Amino acid sequence: MKSIAFSTLAVTTLAVTAAPVSADDHVSPNGVRTLSPEGGIIPTATWSLGTRAGDFIFVAGMRGIDPETNTLVPDAEGRVRQAFMNMQLIAESEGATLRDAVRLVVYVTDMYRYRPIVNQIQEELWGDGPYPPRTIIEVDRLNQDDIVEVEGTFYAPVED
Amino acid sequence: MKSIAFSTLAVTTLAVTAAPVSADDHVSPNGVRTLSPEGGIIPTATWSLGTRAGDFIFVAGMRGIDPETNTLVPDAEGRVRQAFMNMQLIAESEGATLRDAVRLVVYVTDMYRYRPIVNQIQEELWGDGPYPPRTIIEVDRLNQDDIVEVEGTFYAPVED
Amino acid sequence: MKSIAFSTLAVTTLAVTAAPVSADDHVSPNGVRTLSPEGGIIPTATWSLGTRAGDFIFVAGMRGIDPETNTLVPDAEGRVRQAFMNMQLIAESEGATLRDAVRLVVYVTDMYRYRPIVNQIQEELWGDGPYPPRTIIEVDRLNQDDIVEVEGTFYAPVED
Repeated sequence: MKSIAFSTLAVTTLAVTAAPVSADDHVSPNGVRTLSPEGGIIPTATWSLGTRAGDFIFVAGMRGIDPETNTLVPDAEGRVRQAFMNMQLIAESEGATLRDAVRLVVYVTDMYRYRPIVNQIQEELWGDGPYPPRTIIEVDRLNQDDIVEVEGTFYAPVED
Repeated sequence: MKSIAFSTLAVTTLAVTAAPVSADDHVSPNGVRTLSPEGGIIPTATWSLGTRAGDFIFVAGMRGIDPETNTLVPDAEGRVRQAFMNMQLIAESEGATLRDAVRLVVYVTDMYRYRPIVNQIQEELWGDGPYPPRTIIEVDRLNQDDIVEVEGTFYAPVED
Repeated sequence: MKSIAFSTLAVTTLAVTAAPVSADDHVSPNGVRTLSPEGGIIPTATWSLGTRAGDFIFVAGMRGIDPETNTLVPDAEGRVRQAFMNMQLIAESEGATLRDAVRLVVYVTDMYRYRPIVNQIQEELWGDGPYPPRTIIEVDRLNQDDIVEVEGTFYAPVED
């Protein structure tokens, strides 16, 4: 519920210049900026979609949640694609393309079933590459008993 | 045993200015500084609590070990809180607050049992947020058959 | 197959100055450089060995694949050593030593069997330390049903 309030706040801040809460609430004491780009999914617990700190963008583990409906995409291939697209949206909101990923960590719940799908979707999205360095592991369980989660780190130098 | 020697060394270096080993031992060829803040837990194997490199602080996976006794906090809630506090102590020793976290990765051994506790403790520690981007996964096993491990990355720009 | 083509391309670019594809193909729009150092293993899917972005080097999860034969080292101890050496080769190609690691994440498929081997190999490679901050977890499965995977991040400031 906190997250929904937070997201609503972001929209309000854009719409109403005299909003009681300033944009500085999204910047930490040391200058870490919390990201909540338009069109992104809505976090439902104690986490946010991403941060920018210096020249790097850190995206939370993304799953195949359709931001239109905030529910999981039903089929495996579509869900993996959506996970990558959710990550992409956050990275692009800070000026980073998929090619600017410095690392991916991919968590799957079945290596044999889902690793080939991840490879296929990455070919779709990255074309002939080069691809980011990747670590892929099979874990016991993801939130909502989901099948794939993707965590990306990106680089987009701040212009002076 | 090596780690205990290392920790003792750090204390000695502070206390005795004519110590035979200089503080430079904790700085790598490229300037990575190994952290061993006062009050922190004592690593018992081939790892250290954290590093600073440039503007970032990298904290090792922290578990709910009480630094007073170097043993695990008995109850689940207390143990999760302690894990976050162990991380916080290391981050703060380099000038970063919890709000300056750029990413958390949380490893639990039971998603249904421990994710709600992690959420609750994060509300305690971060208040209304914003919260850091987070990846949470259920794994097979942690060291000492522990239940939760938290890995944080922080931002604290070096002052010029 | 893509990876093999990519690797061949890198060699060609070095050998033939009039190559139709420039070295810029290995640099992203924002300046992330994809690494494929000589002597490294050859990725067989949609990933690369590492990236450099600003002052940091991000190495993909490395396993104990012998780059001479591109097959897994048979014994556990040798395989763990090889995984660390594969990581080291990539880091060193960008001017970072093992001491310049800012963080390691180690994935094992049996905490009781493989953590002691990881500790032993790290003592071999890092000597008396200090050691990097480390997170070690037991996961369900790694690619190729492997036993240990090591993911390292390194620091090597760009000279002005």
